[in-house]
Amino acid sequence: MRYTSGAIETLIDEFARLPGIGRKTAQRLCMHMLNEPRTAAEKLAKALLDVKDRVIRCSECQNVTDRDSDPCVLCRSSGRDRTVICVVESPVDLLAFEKTGHYKGLYHVLHGVISPLDGIGPDDIKVRELLARVSRPEESLQVREVVLALNPTVEGETTSLYISRLLKPLGIAVSKIARGIPVGAELEFIDEATLSRAMEGRSAM
Amino acid sequence: MRYTSGAIETLIDEFARLPGIGRKTAQRLCMHMLNEPRTAAEKLAKALLDVKDRVIRCSECQNVTDRDSDPCVLCRSSGRDRTVICVVESPVDLLAFEKTGHYKGLYHVLHGVISPLDGIGPDDIKVRELLARVSRPEESLQVREVVLALNPTVEGETTSLYISRLLKPLGIAVSKIARGIPVGAELEFIDEATLSRAMEGRSAM
Ligand SMILES: [Zn+2]
Ligand SMILES: [Zn+2]
Repeated sequence: MRYTSGAIETLIDEFARLPGIGRKTAQRLCMHMLNEPRTAAEKLAKALLDVKDRVIRCSECQNVTDRDSDPCVLCRSSGRDRTVICVVESPVDLLAFEKTGHYKGLYHVLHGVISPLDGIGPDDIKVRELLARVSRPEESLQVREVVLALNPTVEGETTSLYISRLLKPLGIAVSKIARGIPVGAELEFIDEATLSRAMEGRSAM
Repeated sequence: MRYTSGAIETLIDEFARLPGIGRKTAQRLCMHMLNEPRTAAEKLAKALLDVKDRVIRCSECQNVTDRDSDPCVLCRSSGRDRTVICVVESPVDLLAFEKTGHYKGLYHVLHGVISPLDGIGPDDIKVRELLARVSRPEESLQVREVVLALNPTVEGETTSLYISRLLKPLGIAVSKIARGIPVGAELEFIDEATLSRAMEGRSAM
């Protein structure tokens, strides 16, 4: 048995296509939209199309930005240290660093990591664009350090190594963010791999 | 810190307005749409507007139906017993009964329950429309029984009592669905109120 409305069925189907949205949730969302004014549906519909029509990748850092704002606000900002580039996998990771408010350099978004098993090679992510950025002759744009901030997965590590080998011959300092005990975490609840990394990465006091 | 794209921020805001969708989930859904082809966004956008433009309430049973299908398929069906009407709170509850495949009568959807604390009175839900249905003089449409299938809440019980008092003087049999132990449930895990109800509602074997 399905709903007595084809329009309702279709909207439930479309909601259920979204990741992490099951049929029960899709049904609840659809019923919610039924009870909302038409303007609510219009706003969500417009936002969906706008994201497809207006969002592009910044020609500098490959971060997401609006069509009428390229390079992105971060790349255009006069308050950023242009000698450091932090390399991240996704715009969400970039946002995580920005939220800390501590990092003041530039970014480069790879939009993925090298993953041979998934058929993703260096040319499928934004490695070439990174290389172009750090190779520019203009003195004012000289990048001195690239900080790799990829996820601690096998693919992330592989990608970090690959990029590091490309950049070092260019005389650029390449670093990697520290792995260790999260702030506020209790040692007894930390997994062994993290503990080992924390021990390896110990620093003098 | 927000995204470097206004279009992305707007879509996250709109997703986060949906019930049960937090900001993290909204962010994930937005990133998903960014990676989908434009047709995926178009389909969801169209489905949202269609639900507002095409869905109406059946003039007979108040169930949701499409504009070009009134009365709804259930009310038009020749295979239903027109002497019984099952009264439910919402289209979702109607669907739950239809899924069982056992009930073959008609329905009436109240679209809510009487709730004085929320300022919802009998005229704010579809009680008047139910009264009109059972009061029709045509012999062929004569309703003999109304089954109240509202949720076992204070408001549901109040509404059941209210409707029952309206219908009984009209010579219509009014019944209420049984409360009791769910099929397959183990007694030890059933709450006391349900156990008491099950005991009260015991039937001869
Ligand atoms: Zn940028
Ligand atoms: Zn109907």
